[in-house]
Amino acid sequence: MNQPIHPVILCGGGGTRLWPMSRPERPKPFLPLLGDRTLFQQALDRVSDTNVFAAPVIVAGDAHVGHIRAQAGTGPALIVEPAPRNTAPAIALAAARLPDDAVMLVCPSDHHIADTDAFVAAARSAAGLAGQGCLVAFGIEADRPETGYGYLRRGEPMDGGYRIEAFVEKPDRDRAQAFLADGRYSWNGGIFAFRAGRFMEELSLYRPAMAEQVRHAVAKGRERDGIFHPDTTAFCGIEPESVDYAVMENTGNAAMVPVAMGWSDIGNWRALHVASVGKADPRGNVADARHDIVDGSNVLALSDGPRISVLGLDDVVVIVENGEVLVTRAQRAQDVGNLPGAKGE
Amino acid sequence: MNQPIHPVILCGGGGTRLWPMSRPERPKPFLPLLGDRTLFQQALDRVSDTNVFAAPVIVAGDAHVGHIRAQAGTGPALIVEPAPRNTAPAIALAAARLPDDAVMLVCPSDHHIADTDAFVAAARSAAGLAGQGCLVAFGIEADRPETGYGYLRRGEPMDGGYRIEAFVEKPDRDRAQAFLADGRYSWNGGIFAFRAGRFMEELSLYRPAMAEQVRHAVAKGRERDGIFHPDTTAFCGIEPESVDYAVMENTGNAAMVPVAMGWSDIGNWRALHVASVGKADPRGNVADARHDIVDGSNVLALSDGPRISVLGLDDVVVIVENGEVLVTRAQRAQDVGNLPGAKGE
Repeated sequence: MNQPIHPVILCGGGGTRLWPMSRPERPKPFLPLLGDRTLFQQALDRVSDTNVFAAPVIVAGDAHVGHIRAQAGTGPALIVEPAPRNTAPAIALAAARLPDDAVMLVCPSDHHIADTDAFVAAARSAAGLAGQGCLVAFGIEADRPETGYGYLRRGEPMDGGYRIEAFVEKPDRDRAQAFLADGRYSWNGGIFAFRAGRFMEELSLYRPAMAEQVRHAVAKGRERDGIFHPDTTAFCGIEPESVDYAVMENTGNAAMVPVAMGWSDIGNWRALHVASVGKADPRGNVADARHDIVDGSNVLALSDGPRISVLGLDDVVVIVENGEVLVTRAQRAQDVGNLPGAKGE
Repeated sequence: MNQPIHPVILCGGGGTRLWPMSRPERPKPFLPLLGDRTLFQQALDRVSDTNVFAAPVIVAGDAHVGHIRAQAGTGPALIVEPAPRNTAPAIALAAARLPDDAVMLVCPSDHHIADTDAFVAAARSAAGLAGQGCLVAFGIEADRPETGYGYLRRGEPMDGGYRIEAFVEKPDRDRAQAFLADGRYSWNGGIFAFRAGRFMEELSLYRPAMAEQVRHAVAKGRERDGIFHPDTTAFCGIEPESVDYAVMENTGNAAMVPVAMGWSDIGNWRALHVASVGKADPRGNVADARHDIVDGSNVLALSDGPRISVLGLDDVVVIVENGEVLVTRAQRAQDVGNLPGAKGE
């Protein structure tokens, strides 16, 4: 048996684009958006095979602790960030507390993955490359010219993956179309694997202050009620930065494993609709049976109580939740976060 | 001063096309759809000038009594139909209890009329013709090729109006367009004037059984708590029929007065939107300030509580009421009554 993979589950972010369902007090990872289990619970479920994975470590904000305890019990190790500082410091907190040779698998807690077997297979490949010293990203098969994600361009093949030749920012429509035609591009889904010690070495190389502050915050941190609290002053002094900018785009050892696993970041209501395709009726409508979609197609209707009746409309999203009613054209779903309601106005 | 006009206000009908706001227990006349006053209250307000009008008589169903008392007090005379039998018997109940020479003005309780002065002027003209023995209908100026209304075709001019040459059923689009171009056609809005005795004479001529049964129901009726209850057995034996079919289309004395008074039957949500044009923003949206219509036009949004946020949609109606959420394309508003929710399913 290989060395177990140490899952590191990141809980962060607001998710205003799933307003009015996701709200500051009930953020996206903790919602049962697809099935009975929440996205967070599904993230834990995916790494529950003890033949492959060690016990997970969860890195979260203070506001998330109640949800985590309610949905995962007191079992998983929990590191609470004193303040949000983006993904590089969050990952470093976990890396600094793991043995240097432990292979970490960093996973967002608010994505959907339909094919767990493909996920686990990719995790094994990524762990293999990580064991050789690579910093590995999952390269998610791009099946449409998506403009909402960053891309990875693959280079030379390696054992179970490829070198990463370039990290590419979110493209416009034309470039996204070109990426799709090119074939060497895949989506950067924010899933990474590396040895904990290698990550800290590379972080020290490119962001020495951040690495030092994280080590300091961990050294001065305290365990309380089964939760590790890094030192607040040390951690809060860190400049926020994503792991992509701080490490992945700088290292000479970036690798990727290609994977097609029915992945979605459920970044907006349209993405949830697409990910719910298995629950759709023949006209593409996704709605509980108590709702009525009449002469409509590609309608997503979700409600925490009131019945929704939709008549003669296509490609719309209707969300009724917590005393708010959202009706949006599906193509405008990415702009929901800018609505006054979503901004708390 | 002329003889006062006796307003007869008819309260009936379900109005499922304004679901989920109008419901069996709270029908359309008793909703404040336009302004603070309900359509029923506005109908009373229109005939409140005692220089022109006598005290009104209200003909209603038993289920409406609570609403009528709550919205109009115990003042107006009230006749309660033991069962709904359409407009001819309802009007006959009032006619049989009024003096023969009293001029009645029959008004639905669930229409909207923007221009009260024009209404009153037309009522005076109609009363003049009614005093000469005519059975008079308001001929509402047709300003669009409406397929949802019946039409009147005018003939020879009379003093203050015209003879009615024909009653025309709801036309298809092409005929409605031809009517509009022709100029002799106006909408039949269900507003009528005649002397009470003349009406009963004509009813006796064309529907002798109905006239007899109404007279019998009135003769055997009882006043209780200020409400007149016709005899149930006698009234329930009547064959339901509209006043148009039973009398107006048969009489040789039909006349019409043309009127442009900003009339609408508020027959569906789209009609309410059109009638609310004075409250619309520059993009044609009608919504309380607490709702957010972003990048949308011609949106009607009404709610009894939850905020409505509409993003990137045009020509839609969103109604939130009583635990139901309706979202319909405006062009489909006439089909709302067929939704499962509107049918009580």
